[in-house]
Amino acid sequence: MQLPRQLTRYLPILDWARTYDRETASADGLAAVIVTIMLIPQSLAYALLAGLPAEMGLYASILPLVAYAIFGTSRALAVGPVAVVSLMTAAAIGNLGLSDPVDIALAAGTLAFISGVILSLLGLFRLGFLANFLSHPVIAGFITASGVLIAASQLKHIFGIDMHGHTLTELIRTMFAHLGETNGYTLVLGLTALAFLFWVRKGLKPLLLKKGVPPKLADVLTKAGPVAAVVVTTLATWVFGLSNAGVKIVGEIPMGLPPLTAPSFSPSLWNELFMSALLISIIGFVESVSVAQTLAAKRRQRISPDQELIGLGTSNIASAVSGGFPVTGGFSRSVVNFDAGAATPAAGAYTAVGIAVATLLLTPLLFFLPKATLAATIIVAVLSLVDFSILKKAWGYSKVDFAAVFATIVLTLGFGVELGVSAGVLISIGLHLYKTSRPHVAEVGLVPETHHFRNIKRHKVKTLPHLVTLRVDESLYFANARFLEDYVLGRVTCDEPIEHVVLMFPAVNEVDMSALETLEELNRRLSEMGIQLHLSEVKGPVMDRLKRSHFLDELTGKVFLSQYDAWQALQEPAPSPEQGSPAKVGAA
Amino acid sequence: MQLPRQLTRYLPILDWARTYDRETASADGLAAVIVTIMLIPQSLAYALLAGLPAEMGLYASILPLVAYAIFGTSRALAVGPVAVVSLMTAAAIGNLGLSDPVDIALAAGTLAFISGVILSLLGLFRLGFLANFLSHPVIAGFITASGVLIAASQLKHIFGIDMHGHTLTELIRTMFAHLGETNGYTLVLGLTALAFLFWVRKGLKPLLLKKGVPPKLADVLTKAGPVAAVVVTTLATWVFGLSNAGVKIVGEIPMGLPPLTAPSFSPSLWNELFMSALLISIIGFVESVSVAQTLAAKRRQRISPDQELIGLGTSNIASAVSGGFPVTGGFSRSVVNFDAGAATPAAGAYTAVGIAVATLLLTPLLFFLPKATLAATIIVAVLSLVDFSILKKAWGYSKVDFAAVFATIVLTLGFGVELGVSAGVLISIGLHLYKTSRPHVAEVGLVPETHHFRNIKRHKVKTLPHLVTLRVDESLYFANARFLEDYVLGRVTCDEPIEHVVLMFPAVNEVDMSALETLEELNRRLSEMGIQLHLSEVKGPVMDRLKRSHFLDELTGKVFLSQYDAWQALQEPAPSPEQGSPAKVGAA
Repeated sequence: MQLPRQLTRYLPILDWARTYDRETASADGLAAVIVTIMLIPQSLAYALLAGLPAEMGLYASILPLVAYAIFGTSRALAVGPVAVVSLMTAAAIGNLGLSDPVDIALAAGTLAFISGVILSLLGLFRLGFLANFLSHPVIAGFITASGVLIAASQLKHIFGIDMHGHTLTELIRTMFAHLGETNGYTLVLGLTALAFLFWVRKGLKPLLLKKGVPPKLADVLTKAGPVAAVVVTTLATWVFGLSNAGVKIVGEIPMGLPPLTAPSFSPSLWNELFMSALLISIIGFVESVSVAQTLAAKRRQRISPDQELIGLGTSNIASAVSGGFPVTGGFSRSVVNFDAGAATPAAGAYTAVGIAVATLLLTPLLFFLPKATLAATIIVAVLSLVDFSILKKAWGYSKVDFAAVFATIVLTLGFGVELGVSAGVLISIGLHLYKTSRPHVAEVGLVPETHHFRNIKRHKVKTLPHLVTLRVDESLYFANARFLEDYVLGRVTCDEPIEHVVLMFPAVNEVDMSALETLEELNRRLSEMGIQLHLSEVKGPVMDRLKRSHFLDELTGKVFLSQYDAWQALQEPAPSPEQGSPAKVGAA
Repeated sequence: MQLPRQLTRYLPILDWARTYDRETASADGLAAVIVTIMLIPQSLAYALLAGLPAEMGLYASILPLVAYAIFGTSRALAVGPVAVVSLMTAAAIGNLGLSDPVDIALAAGTLAFISGVILSLLGLFRLGFLANFLSHPVIAGFITASGVLIAASQLKHIFGIDMHGHTLTELIRTMFAHLGETNGYTLVLGLTALAFLFWVRKGLKPLLLKKGVPPKLADVLTKAGPVAAVVVTTLATWVFGLSNAGVKIVGEIPMGLPPLTAPSFSPSLWNELFMSALLISIIGFVESVSVAQTLAAKRRQRISPDQELIGLGTSNIASAVSGGFPVTGGFSRSVVNFDAGAATPAAGAYTAVGIAVATLLLTPLLFFLPKATLAATIIVAVLSLVDFSILKKAWGYSKVDFAAVFATIVLTLGFGVELGVSAGVLISIGLHLYKTSRPHVAEVGLVPETHHFRNIKRHKVKTLPHLVTLRVDESLYFANARFLEDYVLGRVTCDEPIEHVVLMFPAVNEVDMSALETLEELNRRLSEMGIQLHLSEVKGPVMDRLKRSHFLDELTGKVFLSQYDAWQALQEPAPSPEQGSPAKVGAA
């Protein structure tokens, strides 16, 4: 039976569920078991990072996964709490200055709800392309700086001290202020967990492979490292009674399924949270969609970015109504899901069942879990995000891109995630506009024995004293129109007997109305100086546009199909006593 | 004697004053007399428009003109209070909610001072190009909408009623609320003045010319219309004692030269006024520099936009310290100055002397000047700014430009000048980014018997089933990189045995780092599908940039100098059973 296209477009589940069979189900099931084991400590840790009770991390890993399984298009994306979005949630809620835990949880749910609405609307109106306005270097810089901030913010749990702040300077200042209060047991526990997790990441897999363990199993064992750390440190804390010696523990997590919660609809709260929710939506979407695209490409599948927005939007709304906080697709978790063989979004739904079972049965076992262990898992996870080599790469490629990434890193570290990412977007756009506002204009001449015209500064070419040909290497629009006018008028203010100016337009993809008015003005002014203005190699769409204005009627010269036609038509100077000089071959 | 270039650059007076002679002086003097006569009623009227005492208009027409004569580069620009900037001043001060006239005057002076500092700094740092980010249609829409707002705001003086507001809706609402309080004498006086001034503008000059009056004199007499209206209505008000019958008059204007005033340096006031001052600076500069450039071009002179910023900046600072408010170069006044033969900026200095003499001697004569007359002069002056034909012009040329101008007009009328112009800038930039984020990509084929390649949708061209050639008609940068990737991947997902994709880059003027990463990704994905990626006709600067990255090492195909080279090298498909089909000639 063929379902209506409109329906399967908005409900991808109708598409893949029709061919769902036992084999796919067992592949999805295996992947779900592995992801569930990985997700339990992660979800607790990211809830703490967001400044929320640990159980909210579990709640954010149940219904949102079911929603994504229904509405999402990626077959491998694993949705849930992730590091950067949790940090942004902490920053957004920190701005509100709340102290009552009930208010804080409500604000987190409301943030997820607003973000869910924004994402769903962007998807319905097919505005996914807006995410493209974050340039790659800006994203890379932002993720790196966020990783540093996250790692720094977790040091408080490793030292067992009080630290706070949303910028690197605040974090370092409060750390040094409280360093004397370090709890020895916590520090030993935290550093041991850190060392163990680093070793698992770097050293365990090669060791297992050397011992003859099959690669797949070695992979799974490596990913289970955080679970081992959780089990061992929890047991140690319980057995040795470390919580009485000042080691902070997760404590009581309510048993049972997530509560049904309603977000706040207070206009003042929405007003305060809106910008944060927008930034979280954009960053969450950009991260998630790039993971989804990478994994889809590996299996020659395609995802739909606009439907992904709806998938993530409904996940966040689901999180908001079930005691959670903002979620998105996580990188490492999705890769594990993919490697473990997840074949459809159903794997996510099975993971949700796994986490639900955990909240029903396992929470008492997590009572003695030290916060230091969770902090260690976060630090090890986020340090893989930190990659300052982007600075070097950008420096080598383009100073403008370097400026954008450098500013994003410095502003994120110095002023927090929200200002950092906003500034990154504005800087990207600003620098792009600045570059295009000073277009490259080359004076060109004829390459001898050919029909080609090249830059007189780079090639040995023929030029004529009465004919100036300028190739414009940029679309003409309001920001650069006057630049061109100044350039041309500056060029013709000389002692040569210039009679013709030809503007070559092979790289001009657009002439907007401001530029059109500038061309009209240029034509008028050149005409007052007795100089004819011509165009050559104008593209079809630009020509169509010019024909709709009066410009071509007013133009003192002609529009030539090719520059060689222009050269042939205009090579003879007007007869006059002081002229008649032949073409000269020049190079500069 | 040759003065240091740096000095004459910042003090253009040192340049023109060296060759100043008696003939130039008499030309400047005549122009100054005419401009002075025109400026007296204008300066009073614009002070009232800005919501300030009438004498502040006179003060703003003395020292600022002297400052511009020293620092400005235009030989014809007449500086002083102008309509749009006065309206923006009224809006900026209205935001503050002040009621004490002393505070209001201080705020106006401070606004001029901040604006002067902004303009001077922009000039010193040569940031004049920033003004280019206001597109022509946005400026045209803004000026038209401002003209409507100004005319509407002056109706209160014509009816002699209380009206207020900074948006058209507020103005109309308050007008209808107070229409019952109309003062009959004021209305008759106002309408008569309006009718007279319209007639002077439209009917007087043809009449004079028909009667044999020389054109120059006819021009001067026409421009003197407002002065005649002022004289006649002032006399009528005095003789018939109309001020006792409710006709509002200018009243006592203090005699004497402008007072020395200091702007406020209160951080909170600066904070509140900063955005307004920035907008006033930009709009003032854009208006002024376009008048200056138009007039300079007529006499084959050049102005320096960056030095113009300094000229206008010092004028505003001069206005702030001498009891004035924000000023800029006015259109009609500069045209009169130019037509009357002003040869150097000294004409402005002489005008300043004329206005100074007026403040010393003439102010008692202005006591009975009805505000209705001033309102009539403003209405007639600004209606020449109102030109809705820009909407039609933009609609015919480009829907995107139309959207920008329409939104600017609607937002200015509905939400006031500040929101209108800010939104206009953002809309211009946003629409430009939107357009470039969806670049034109054309699939091209070989025009038979030539070396040229053209769009397969527009021309009858040869194509090969194993070779796809796409011409990219836009620079590649972060906002459109992913679009290209999706386009290419969408194109190759078909049943044809595609072996090669060639991207033609003749119109690609830039490849930023985001686009580079996208090209790397595209290369990788096509490679996984067994397709080679090639480039052709890459420009010199783009190639230089690509050479600095690893992209060319990773590229599975080649970079061809011309597309024809690519065609020749790749025209043979790889030998395989199902292939070997010859080139086909197709057209769509």
